[in-house]
Amino acid sequence: MNNVSAMLEAHPKDLTGVDSDKLVECITACLECAQTCTACADACLGEDMVAELTKCIRTNLDCADICATTGAILSRHTDSNAIVIKSVLEACAAVCKACADECEQHAEMHDHCKICAEACRRCEQACKDLLVSLSHNASR
Amino acid sequence: MNNVSAMLEAHPKDLTGVDSDKLVECITACLECAQTCTACADACLGEDMVAELTKCIRTNLDCADICATTGAILSRHTDSNAIVIKSVLEACAAVCKACADECEQHAEMHDHCKICAEACRRCEQACKDLLVSLSHNASR
Amino acid sequence: MNNVSAMLEAHPKDLTGVDSDKLVECITACLECAQTCTACADACLGEDMVAELTKCIRTNLDCADICATTGAILSRHTDSNAIVIKSVLEACAAVCKACADECEQHAEMHDHCKICAEACRRCEQACKDLLVSLSHNASR
Amino acid sequence: MNNVSAMLEAHPKDLTGVDSDKLVECITACLECAQTCTACADACLGEDMVAELTKCIRTNLDCADICATTGAILSRHTDSNAIVIKSVLEACAAVCKACADECEQHAEMHDHCKICAEACRRCEQACKDLLVSLSHNASR
Repeated sequence: MNNVSAMLEAHPKDLTGVDSDKLVECITACLECAQTCTACADACLGEDMVAELTKCIRTNLDCADICATTGAILSRHTDSNAIVIKSVLEACAAVCKACADECEQHAEMHDHCKICAEACRRCEQACKDLLVSLSHNASR
Repeated sequence: MNNVSAMLEAHPKDLTGVDSDKLVECITACLECAQTCTACADACLGEDMVAELTKCIRTNLDCADICATTGAILSRHTDSNAIVIKSVLEACAAVCKACADECEQHAEMHDHCKICAEACRRCEQACKDLLVSLSHNASR
Repeated sequence: MNNVSAMLEAHPKDLTGVDSDKLVECITACLECAQTCTACADACLGEDMVAELTKCIRTNLDCADICATTGAILSRHTDSNAIVIKSVLEACAAVCKACADECEQHAEMHDHCKICAEACRRCEQACKDLLVSLSHNASR
Repeated sequence: MNNVSAMLEAHPKDLTGVDSDKLVECITACLECAQTCTACADACLGEDMVAELTKCIRTNLDCADICATTGAILSRHTDSNAIVIKSVLEACAAVCKACADECEQHAEMHDHCKICAEACRRCEQACKDLLVSLSHNASR
């Protein structure tokens, strides 16, 4: 996703109160997590033991949805609303944590769950890091 | 959206700890709000005074995204995770509030903003009502 | 989805070359089909015989995605591009047909597949009707 | 998007009739194009001359939607339907072409449109290349 930072630099508005490195990292993590969760849901669906992976599929689908939404909202900088961004980041971190917790239980057996658990954990952390950075900047 | 409740009844799993009327109302409100916000963003874009409506367009796009995601997550009942649902409902209510607040400022001048503000307010309330209902049922 | 036609009437631009009744019907059918397919995928996931329903789940997920996209694109009227709309409607009709064909095979056993097959068939037809209407108007 | 190919390799089903390099390239191009179009729509919205960029914003939003959908559908490999994939790729190529054509007209003035036009053109080509590859493999 090499365009994420290039598009940020090309934006006509100055980012205020946002650490642009942490923002780029979070957008990238969200979009990677969304794709990985979509792929993990489908890989689980293709396993012979699909009946034992229904919770993983369900959580993957939820996580793909919230990560795609969070990635899109973070890609916008015109007339941003701090409460919107904060509440969406908190939801995204919570869903990524739930999906990481679930995928980790299947990580030894299924490589797709291992890769997905790592992507979810990375996105959870990126959301939390951006939240911390936003509240630091807001309090200055 | 006549299918929302029919699909809920046809689901193989029993809903536990969820008021199904409030759930149907919330799914319906989310999907209506998503479509209305998408249409309001575009109607604002078509106005001669679009330069004064950029914050409204931005907020509409965010609200459409989170409402579509919330509507999808609430449409799933297999192996639900209470933390996921709670955090997404809180984010959806926060974004709907922000969008209703913004659209209300243009409601006298633009019918599309008036209709959209009402859809956002209804969805905000439906999310809050479902949250209350979930916490009541969880504490029993 | 009572707002669909109200938002269309509130739009600042005149619709040209579009039958507004067929447009409202198609937007509504797309959004209903998206929600129904999301719910059917999850209901299939909750069935004991999930292993026999993987093709249905897969097709449901694809259909939910294309219907949500088509409903959003049709909800915009500012500076429309006829080629964009035509190509998306053709894709949506094709995916709805595939999903209806698949769900119909499980309709006797699962009510959610029966309801979903009907929603897909309705959306397929609404897309085709709008395509015919667009090409009639374009040739005038 | 380093996970795209890793998730493809970890999938339990063999890909049949698909060139996996072209598939990875197309998924990556779709997801990058979706993010870039979302960011370009917002950057246009932040420009003082937004009133002259409404067609660009509209087309960006449509392109973001179809690219996200195409990226998701291509990320699934369980029980694939060739007609679904072909029709979605054709729609995605058509919308990417429309968006590239529009963004190119603003590329000299706005860097975000220049970057976006290139992402759209790349995605259009990746969809066409995958279509050619699929029809070659289908005819063997």
